[in-house]
Amino acid sequence: MVYHPPLADIRFVLKHLIGPQQRASVPAFADLDEDTVDAILQEAARFAVEVLAPLQRVGDQQGCRLDEQGRVRTPEGWTEAFAQFRAAGWTAARAPQELGGQALPQLLATMITEFWQGANMAFSLLQPLTDGALEALAEGGATDLLDKYGPGLTQGEWAATMALTEPAAGSDLGRVATKAVPAGDGRYRLSGNKIYITYGDHDLAAGILHLVLARVPDAPAGSRGLSLFAVPSHLDVGQRNAVTCTGLEHKLGLHGSPTCSLQFGAEEGALAYLVGTLHQGLPIMFVMMNAARLSVGMQAVGVIERGYQTALGWARERRQGHHPVTGESAVLIEHPDVKRLLLRIRSQTLALRLLGYWLAFQQDRVASAADVPAQGLVDLLTPVFKAYASEAANRLAGDVIQIFGGLGFVEETGVAQLYRDLRISTIYEGTTGIQAQDLVLRKLLRDQGTVFQIWVDQVAADLELCRHPQVTVAMPLISSALQQLDRGVRTLLQTSAENPIRLHGGSVALLEAMGVLASAWQLVRAVTAMDSTAPATDPQADLPDLLNAYCAQFLPDVGAHLQRLQRADWGQAARLAVEQ
Amino acid sequence: MVYHPPLADIRFVLKHLIGPQQRASVPAFADLDEDTVDAILQEAARFAVEVLAPLQRVGDQQGCRLDEQGRVRTPEGWTEAFAQFRAAGWTAARAPQELGGQALPQLLATMITEFWQGANMAFSLLQPLTDGALEALAEGGATDLLDKYGPGLTQGEWAATMALTEPAAGSDLGRVATKAVPAGDGRYRLSGNKIYITYGDHDLAAGILHLVLARVPDAPAGSRGLSLFAVPSHLDVGQRNAVTCTGLEHKLGLHGSPTCSLQFGAEEGALAYLVGTLHQGLPIMFVMMNAARLSVGMQAVGVIERGYQTALGWARERRQGHHPVTGESAVLIEHPDVKRLLLRIRSQTLALRLLGYWLAFQQDRVASAADVPAQGLVDLLTPVFKAYASEAANRLAGDVIQIFGGLGFVEETGVAQLYRDLRISTIYEGTTGIQAQDLVLRKLLRDQGTVFQIWVDQVAADLELCRHPQVTVAMPLISSALQQLDRGVRTLLQTSAENPIRLHGGSVALLEAMGVLASAWQLVRAVTAMDSTAPATDPQADLPDLLNAYCAQFLPDVGAHLQRLQRADWGQAARLAVEQ
Repeated sequence: MVYHPPLADIRFVLKHLIGPQQRASVPAFADLDEDTVDAILQEAARFAVEVLAPLQRVGDQQGCRLDEQGRVRTPEGWTEAFAQFRAAGWTAARAPQELGGQALPQLLATMITEFWQGANMAFSLLQPLTDGALEALAEGGATDLLDKYGPGLTQGEWAATMALTEPAAGSDLGRVATKAVPAGDGRYRLSGNKIYITYGDHDLAAGILHLVLARVPDAPAGSRGLSLFAVPSHLDVGQRNAVTCTGLEHKLGLHGSPTCSLQFGAEEGALAYLVGTLHQGLPIMFVMMNAARLSVGMQAVGVIERGYQTALGWARERRQGHHPVTGESAVLIEHPDVKRLLLRIRSQTLALRLLGYWLAFQQDRVASAADVPAQGLVDLLTPVFKAYASEAANRLAGDVIQIFGGLGFVEETGVAQLYRDLRISTIYEGTTGIQAQDLVLRKLLRDQGTVFQIWVDQVAADLELCRHPQVTVAMPLISSALQQLDRGVRTLLQTSAENPIRLHGGSVALLEAMGVLASAWQLVRAVTAMDSTAPATDPQADLPDLLNAYCAQFLPDVGAHLQRLQRADWGQAARLAVEQ
Repeated sequence: MVYHPPLADIRFVLKHLIGPQQRASVPAFADLDEDTVDAILQEAARFAVEVLAPLQRVGDQQGCRLDEQGRVRTPEGWTEAFAQFRAAGWTAARAPQELGGQALPQLLATMITEFWQGANMAFSLLQPLTDGALEALAEGGATDLLDKYGPGLTQGEWAATMALTEPAAGSDLGRVATKAVPAGDGRYRLSGNKIYITYGDHDLAAGILHLVLARVPDAPAGSRGLSLFAVPSHLDVGQRNAVTCTGLEHKLGLHGSPTCSLQFGAEEGALAYLVGTLHQGLPIMFVMMNAARLSVGMQAVGVIERGYQTALGWARERRQGHHPVTGESAVLIEHPDVKRLLLRIRSQTLALRLLGYWLAFQQDRVASAADVPAQGLVDLLTPVFKAYASEAANRLAGDVIQIFGGLGFVEETGVAQLYRDLRISTIYEGTTGIQAQDLVLRKLLRDQGTVFQIWVDQVAADLELCRHPQVTVAMPLISSALQQLDRGVRTLLQTSAENPIRLHGGSVALLEAMGVLASAWQLVRAVTAMDSTAPATDPQADLPDLLNAYCAQFLPDVGAHLQRLQRADWGQAARLAVEQ
């Protein structure tokens, strides 16, 4: 199964959509001329293709195992690959310069993240945890910990985890029961059991810094009583802290990535450092989770890009049936229904990629200067991107299998693995339902749609700018869908008090409708930005067709989702008897 | 993971929808009084729960293997279970009485099929092959073969396969290259390689009768040159025919069901019997495949029913978060978004179950007396049922996982297995694309929508009859969606010549739209048939809520699918460049 990082799409973006001039306005790009940017991308692409992609399959087949010492062993070749990843400086890509990192702009990092994930999703779940830990330590003002662990995390000698979930505390973190009691020396003794800890133990890095949500004695109940602690796997060279991997999950996908049950402090508690102030654990953790949402969305994009390339290759080569018009023997891609599936995958993958880049670049802008409107748009669209990209990628992975027919159901092609691996993306870092709740309650209701209105106006303005002759039929349909969405949100806000069930039960439908439109908007911006002098053989020549295909296949869902939103309270009184 | 066959739904159907009087009009039910019907269903339900369901998990975990003799070994306990299945007479359920079978009506057999599939899909793929082989032999007028193998197939001493696919011949059977040359004694010598043969070898029955598509010398090219042959695994007691299992597929799901590569006649060809006349293989095979389509649809229904029950149990027990209105600690089902997912699954599963029963009973009617309109409706709705039920069940299996959150991604819950097992259902026995092509070309275009119009009129008439006060808002929406569909089909037929791409590229969208409406129609019929005197605790009291939930969640897709149909040619000119 081949994988090519999407360099042509990226070059188009860096030339026409987020061009040199725009980038120059952002300090993060100050030291990065065009050649450097291109060199970084090419080198990352090479690493993804040559080092990471070949280990994706073995990761799935071998999975991880607990050795006799109770330590997790990753699949064959993974420690060597991580050593190369570290040596090439990729663990330092996002880290701040004062820790020895390269502090790459979010836009570049996001592009590269897609390469890692497309090449080997299970392997590449580790790095975002480390990046997130560095952010969380900075957010918590934990300068001592940053001094002590920051350089190691940056160089990949240390890795990190996010230890939130417990058997009784999944989406509801208020139920976290892990305890931390003062050890008398400023540190804490932490004890409890965490589950579903990605890379909770492994042999890639020498040390692991666990960021753990726990409760000190007499802390308030619920999520307001949670504090964040850093628990290193080793206290001094060779001396292990009381953190044990008590089990590995047997999962639908991502076999190469160890999902651990961790026991903290079997006897007297693991030594832990408070990060930030007491009872402020959740806000810090949310910083990490927020960053993770963009990363999960790009994961979904990267994995489905690989599926698309695989399906396209097969559809061009596999001869079956006859062309419906000419009657001649045909390859799959010549069948309109197969072409339709390929167009669905390609147009949506591209649209989501552009949306991810757009979000990343807004983050770069916001990071350098307080830009309230840009921050608002990032906050509004981040849950939409995370949930819609992951939901869409799961559906498209089904389309990839469908293109392969019976062969798609056979593990040897590799597309079944993509289908399995992707399934977690709508769940972790906040399920689709949780993202939708965030969108509706915190991003729409709280400001009564003010930021949403700014976004709608920006989309409408961008639609006005698009005058490409090939998309004149589609454009009014997008405008009309945008107006429908706008009306739907207004109605929802006006009736939210009288119909809270609709607000909650309809939130996913609303999120999906916004996802469809945000994606269409990105394709429109790309068509507008096309270079009219580019030759017809340039990949960008496909853009108007892709926008049209997107409008044919996905835009109709906006109306359907808005109807679902409106009727979200229907049937909710059903008893749902199962006893037969 | 618990599984209860849906006896309450079935009792409602047998009392109110396809009641004793209606059944009495069909000869197949002549000897079956209500008590007998109930006893058969109860006994089948008991067998499914006690014998088949406990083996579903071990089948997935162990899978099948090739032993040292190159024979397939099924998972632990499966041969014993099949011996019980045979001893209890279930292999004979559908077989004709003259072969020692029970000739159960299609309606009853369809209900029971769902139990088998819900309990253990991988195990239960075998019986439909045997039933189909008996039908094919009868269709081909192969009385000698029926005399010789019919009783064994009926008693489960023999099993059967459908050996169609070859490496170059998937959906396109015209490419079949397997050869059969006359052996001089009226038999043939058959040689070639077949792949993806479900239960191509196993240790459940003593003998296997392979029904094989092959070509005699000088046969016409393409599908018109295919003949059907019966190839027994054993010629006389102990003497094996030249059929070898050369490999087992490693599949995404259905690990317990062996998917074999078969080599026929490594040296001088396997001895084979012609079924029917030369070059008439495909029409006979289509009889088998037609029957299989109803069965695949019910498979999807059975498996998703099990997923629903599992998810419902979890949603009632798992405490997370707070109720959006009362603010009190809540179990999952109290969250409107989770309730929405459960309502989606339950309402669509029930609707598809009713549609399957409706189709089955029409088959019973048609089998006893030539009923041209009924036959037309069966032909029209069979591809819709197969494709829509399987597509819907795959989507709903995703919803089941979503309800479990992180736990759903872990294999231990069993819901991940359902997700994996179900994935094949949109592919085998004709992919969704193939079903849609059948619908559009053979069922709509050929008679210019005549039968379709009969169906629309019947649905419209049934909608008129439904006056339940709880569904007065939903009913006009269904009528309006039906009119939209009707207009969409008329337009398609009028423009089919000038826009064949739309016809082909839009066929799946049209099929999905019909599936949504056919399902809604069935729920409407159920609401109309409700017993107004039944107590509120009766499961049927949920029906109006389920119809409303269905209309909220799925009916909006009709309009969206019709827009997709209308725009199906958009973007088809895209080059889809992948080189980066």
